[in-house]
Amino acid sequence: MDILVVGSVGIDTITTPHGKAEGVLGGSASHFSCAASFFAPVKLVGVVGTDFPGEYIDVLKARGVDLEGLQVCPGETFRWSGDYTVDYNKAHTLETRLNVFATFNPILPESYRDAKIVFLANIDPELQTQVLAQVRSPSLVVGDTMNYWIETKRESVFDVFKRLDVALVNDQEARDLAETYSLIDAGRILLKKGPKQVVIKKGEHGALLFQGDELFFAPAYPYGTVTDPTGAGDSFAGGFVGHLARTGEFSPLSLRQAVIHGSVMGSLNVEDFSVRRILRATDGDIRDRYKSFQDLVRFWR
Amino acid sequence: MDILVVGSVGIDTITTPHGKAEGVLGGSASHFSCAASFFAPVKLVGVVGTDFPGEYIDVLKARGVDLEGLQVCPGETFRWSGDYTVDYNKAHTLETRLNVFATFNPILPESYRDAKIVFLANIDPELQTQVLAQVRSPSLVVGDTMNYWIETKRESVFDVFKRLDVALVNDQEARDLAETYSLIDAGRILLKKGPKQVVIKKGEHGALLFQGDELFFAPAYPYGTVTDPTGAGDSFAGGFVGHLARTGEFSPLSLRQAVIHGSVMGSLNVEDFSVRRILRATDGDIRDRYKSFQDLVRFWR
Repeated sequence: MDILVVGSVGIDTITTPHGKAEGVLGGSASHFSCAASFFAPVKLVGVVGTDFPGEYIDVLKARGVDLEGLQVCPGETFRWSGDYTVDYNKAHTLETRLNVFATFNPILPESYRDAKIVFLANIDPELQTQVLAQVRSPSLVVGDTMNYWIETKRESVFDVFKRLDVALVNDQEARDLAETYSLIDAGRILLKKGPKQVVIKKGEHGALLFQGDELFFAPAYPYGTVTDPTGAGDSFAGGFVGHLARTGEFSPLSLRQAVIHGSVMGSLNVEDFSVRRILRATDGDIRDRYKSFQDLVRFWR
Repeated sequence: MDILVVGSVGIDTITTPHGKAEGVLGGSASHFSCAASFFAPVKLVGVVGTDFPGEYIDVLKARGVDLEGLQVCPGETFRWSGDYTVDYNKAHTLETRLNVFATFNPILPESYRDAKIVFLANIDPELQTQVLAQVRSPSLVVGDTMNYWIETKRESVFDVFKRLDVALVNDQEARDLAETYSLIDAGRILLKKGPKQVVIKKGEHGALLFQGDELFFAPAYPYGTVTDPTGAGDSFAGGFVGHLARTGEFSPLSLRQAVIHGSVMGSLNVEDFSVRRILRATDGDIRDRYKSFQDLVRFWR
């Protein structure tokens, strides 16, 4: 099944305790697309400026990403620069320049409107709604958000939640949205806001999947060294949605396996800056890492 | 196999967002013994004052705990009072009165000296060493510590580490001992300090077991409500050491199962103040909860 993604495509400058990367490919839709492309065809909706490097277009094309929905508008591309402290829990934004993103009006090409699987990456919830309105009959809608939108457009975030099959949030977003500290309580509260499933990503502590009364506790891949966490959540989403698109199966077990595939892609993402490690990945890497998650949690013969 | 435990026996006054308990049975050896007693016979080494309530002696006796090594000394029993903020991550100590504990000189009764399994609960590392010196040929030594000793007697803590088969620490202790932020790095560093296995307890995020190059990622039981976390770590230790004592098997798989039994007893402990929930537990409760940990992590048929 094809995946439609709407999100940011940008240029990042990132400093971590392990180094600095200037002017690299960034944005939620870029990270998502690269990761998901290992599982299923991806159609991207987004916007860049006329300054966007052709080599980054080539990167996405080389991964087979359909760019018919990527608008090129007069002006500069969305740029973000940030750094991370040693605990990697939080990016510190040094500068965000929305540029062409500020006036982005997502129009879906006709060839996109029958997409069966939709991923609403982290952008303005009103744009997420606009995109969703143009898709005829999606079988599965998965959505992400971020603290900025929770603080500034809380009601719009919840309007999108009503349309989601799966909400992907991180631990802090879950607490802010549910207004409670316990992640177990938060997941259960968010299930009542519309989504059939809620995934809470906890970084080094793994992820939780809530579906009805059932809970799945996914481990984190045990990396000692994180080179750059930027885009880890979007790569997680790429593996997660990718698995569901590849199998076309949305059963409780398949959802669990999707979380593990998300964890696999998220864990690869953090091993290098930008999308570099994901681009170097092979199907064998992904299979081996997936298998290693079984070894991490099994305590019976 | 019998278990020998040395640790504190005390009287706690605890305030949490869910209520207050005054003058209840507390101390690392008390929590440990109650939990471990579901798995194997426990011999306790500790000290109380003449004010220690006979009913608490009866509680331990009813669990079959051997109290020949519990000294009753002139003076008052060790008392601790503390409260917890809503995130439950950290106890805030309001008052600690060591009382008879300040001059405790642990002398093992002859009947204790052939114990095969030793648990050094959280007390002064020099007392832990003193106890260990009196045990003739233990098959398995497991030890706990706490931040206070890491800050004040760091070298003594590491001296004990050299004698341990398994070190049980929580996330903050692991970071402080290993002087690194990543728990994965911390576990690997601590393995080099002597213990054959290291367990890092992460509260709501579960636990990590390091043995050689192998890592086990245990989930946390998904309680929304924590009534009182006091003693959760000691109850974890009780289930962990208890499983190993009951089976007499210290294989990698058995160690993983011990971590799950630890998680079971720790998760029961937090459901009520003091040792109340543990005392109400049945073998059926423990079996059911153990089984539920499989359902939490399994993502294959």
